[in-house]
Amino acid sequence: MDIKEYLNDKRRQVEEALIHCMLPAAGPLARHIEAMRYSLFAGGKRVRPVLCLAAAEALGSDPAPLLPVASALECIHTYSLIHDDLPAMDDDELRRGKPTNHVVFGEAAAILAGDGLLTLAFDLMSDPALRSHISDTDRLRLIQVVARAAGPMGMVGGQALDVASEGQAVDFETLRTIHRCKTGALITCSVQVGAIIGRADAAQYEALTRYGEAIGLAFQIVDDLLNVEGSTEELGKAAGSDAEREKATYPAFFGVEGTRAKAQEAVAMAETALVGFDHQADPLRLLARYIINRKR
Amino acid sequence: MDIKEYLNDKRRQVEEALIHCMLPAAGPLARHIEAMRYSLFAGGKRVRPVLCLAAAEALGSDPAPLLPVASALECIHTYSLIHDDLPAMDDDELRRGKPTNHVVFGEAAAILAGDGLLTLAFDLMSDPALRSHISDTDRLRLIQVVARAAGPMGMVGGQALDVASEGQAVDFETLRTIHRCKTGALITCSVQVGAIIGRADAAQYEALTRYGEAIGLAFQIVDDLLNVEGSTEELGKAAGSDAEREKATYPAFFGVEGTRAKAQEAVAMAETALVGFDHQADPLRLLARYIINRKR
Repeated sequence: MDIKEYLNDKRRQVEEALIHCMLPAAGPLARHIEAMRYSLFAGGKRVRPVLCLAAAEALGSDPAPLLPVASALECIHTYSLIHDDLPAMDDDELRRGKPTNHVVFGEAAAILAGDGLLTLAFDLMSDPALRSHISDTDRLRLIQVVARAAGPMGMVGGQALDVASEGQAVDFETLRTIHRCKTGALITCSVQVGAIIGRADAAQYEALTRYGEAIGLAFQIVDDLLNVEGSTEELGKAAGSDAEREKATYPAFFGVEGTRAKAQEAVAMAETALVGFDHQADPLRLLARYIINRKR
Repeated sequence: MDIKEYLNDKRRQVEEALIHCMLPAAGPLARHIEAMRYSLFAGGKRVRPVLCLAAAEALGSDPAPLLPVASALECIHTYSLIHDDLPAMDDDELRRGKPTNHVVFGEAAAILAGDGLLTLAFDLMSDPALRSHISDTDRLRLIQVVARAAGPMGMVGGQALDVASEGQAVDFETLRTIHRCKTGALITCSVQVGAIIGRADAAQYEALTRYGEAIGLAFQIVDDLLNVEGSTEELGKAAGSDAEREKATYPAFFGVEGTRAKAQEAVAMAETALVGFDHQADPLRLLARYIINRKR
């Protein structure tokens, strides 16, 4: 199977679902909706929704009717990027090669665009139209999985710790906590949501969670590497910005070569987690490789 | 019945529920949790959770086991205050007589404290512990009602429109949209959530929605009045700040006396909406009066 073709196919499905779920930019609230759309359709790789769909497929399930749930994950990811880029946070003016949300719409509108996308995600996941494809009990379960992964003990908490740690000497334990919460939690939960949609049994859910944790770690390690090695053009954001801000990263602890080895280790862990799955999990296996080889 | 006693009793229940549902401020994320707790326990009036409980009681239901849902409404209200007070928004340094969140914890931490509270709200509402007291179907319904009221077409959208309208001449239609979305939506949904918890039939739900819309309107009109008339000490925030920022308000359109009459009208509408309810709706009736007579 060709992972690029698979990715293109899934991304197309996700793009369509996002267009469908997004509110029309009309009426008195048009500018606010426009600010949300600007970042949601700014060329994201859709890694989280694709992981969700691939996890459901690994269990032999057709996730197409549940695309609004996958879309919700992308709304949450996009909101986190908008808030991370704010002047009070990372103060980034470029994201995916385009001016960041607050540069275009102003700081207040950007904060609110993020708030709106986060809230919209829960609207999408609680929509009664999904009832014929997933039980109410499973839906409540996945809403809580997402809320916990995105919330104070997950993504938001990780970002708070990251911001608080800037310019300070942090130990490896703290760096791991930041990575696990800030990036790992939402990636892991994307796989878990796919597992719930695919009606995983307890052992399958546990295995897919381990897979998600491993690729979440690989993803963040590669991010750290790209920030050290990549050019601004490749990244679509300022390269070397982590070092400038004295952010703790994997290369600072293990060097570039050591960090590459850690990324390989994490991918191997992801593959090991999938040993009990048949060929239907091949997209998940290839996605792990894709994540480590990506250039941005 | 004594409304003050009723309010005190309900508030005590809500405070206990909030303490119970709030995460402990320990471990590496302690500072983030502390920032959330700071604003959540800064002396709020708990109007939204109390309205939710009173609406359920109006239908003869004991809402005590569903206090986590009422608490979620207060988490969302608190998040909205933290973000509204930010330098990029209203730039308020005082709230309920205390320094605002960003003054104490810094801007980045305040944005994230708000994000955390919003996300926590959906964690609380999706908790499986509630299963024995409310059907999964009803729970998904109330989650969507809350997400829509708080989201881009509700509270967040209203705040975006408010910010975008600052310093501009706005017509009355726009002012109504701002009020209905920014303040009205979450107040109305608090009553609707109580109605769902109390298993309202369609007519009861519709009546309680009209009640909620009317007191939401009264609430915002009184806010506008207090901002013109109140002292900084009474308000716990800077008085006259709306005029300074050239914000559109009811008094600017109708004068102080005309605005008082509008508030009375809204309370009369709220009372009319409740004509089909028996004495169990008395707290809701008294709450409408309380809202119009409040001093802050």
